[in-house]
Amino acid sequence: MEQFSVETRHRCQLIPITSEIRRIVRQSQVKEGICVVFCPHTTAGLTINENADPDVAKDLVYLLEKIVPANDPNYRHLEGNTAAHMQASLLGSSVHLIISDGELKLGTWQGVYFAEFDGPRIRKVYVQIIS
Amino acid sequence: MEQFSVETRHRCQLIPITSEIRRIVRQSQVKEGICVVFCPHTTAGLTINENADPDVAKDLVYLLEKIVPANDPNYRHLEGNTAAHMQASLLGSSVHLIISDGELKLGTWQGVYFAEFDGPRIRKVYVQIIS
Amino acid sequence: MEQFSVETRHRCQLIPITSEIRRIVRQSQVKEGICVVFCPHTTAGLTINENADPDVAKDLVYLLEKIVPANDPNYRHLEGNTAAHMQASLLGSSVHLIISDGELKLGTWQGVYFAEFDGPRIRKVYVQIIS
Repeated sequence: MEQFSVETRHRCQLIPITSEIRRIVRQSQVKEGICVVFCPHTTAGLTINENADPDVAKDLVYLLEKIVPANDPNYRHLEGNTAAHMQASLLGSSVHLIISDGELKLGTWQGVYFAEFDGPRIRKVYVQIIS
Repeated sequence: MEQFSVETRHRCQLIPITSEIRRIVRQSQVKEGICVVFCPHTTAGLTINENADPDVAKDLVYLLEKIVPANDPNYRHLEGNTAAHMQASLLGSSVHLIISDGELKLGTWQGVYFAEFDGPRIRKVYVQIIS
Repeated sequence: MEQFSVETRHRCQLIPITSEIRRIVRQSQVKEGICVVFCPHTTAGLTINENADPDVAKDLVYLLEKIVPANDPNYRHLEGNTAAHMQASLLGSSVHLIISDGELKLGTWQGVYFAEFDGPRIRKVYVQIIS
């Protein structure tokens, strides 16, 4: 298993991590397999979305904050980050990429994002490759 | 890695793809393993849900359009399909099926759906099987 | 493939299942690999979230019921559990854990939850381990 760190700078933010994953896949020299990318945090997640226009990532952050309001009098958790926990579970803790001919089989417009919902923090990402 | 195409006919639509996946799994002759199904598009996703009453798929499309409105003056992305990007990330880009005794271990009522959010288009689906 | 049962006691409820998964991983004696946990039901799902304060799980249930209302005159599905189908697809049917050095590589605060949205019922969980 490999891992790397991500330094987030805002409370809610999507940070591209495709190049780190691609580097690990190439170093593994695996030709056919899958790559599991895992976020070991409960107030952050991972997602795959557009890698071209950075406004898409901003719109996704805007929408996740709209769908899950930061404050609600019914929240019980006392740390004040209930919304971050929900946003993490909506996106999920892992993404899965197919490796074929030694390369990630991402679509043309796809990139992998680390989704911070309770930053800024230093976060970790785990990568396991199965051939 | 195998792939197949899906032709979508509406802007938002869930299309059953279980039979295509089952065919690829049988041809692989893998007896124990996992099957990773991957959507290489950023305005479409994949999900597993009820295969019996087609009204469930229609209700899911209705709800995803209600949770993520098509228009919002705060959207920055200029292509007008911000909602489709969010809906894709909410469902996710991949589903994972267990293969045991050479068969997909789906529940009785489960089917796999390609979820189009910015159609109609011709889309691709990738399938990787790991034994 | 291994499986175990979960008895749910409420209509909507998150039930911790990390210890059952950890037991299956240890019995497999796999040192490096991935563990796919799969929910074979269409009105229940799986998620990874905080294992410390049980109020987080209650807040997640509260939010999922708020985001997806139980009743809506536009729902077509006649069984009355459309919301449960949507909640299941929002969380997803599977979670994926990295196994390294023979142990689950979960973060400090992470636990795996079975997410019931149409209980109480007896549910099944499938576990497949790939080395």
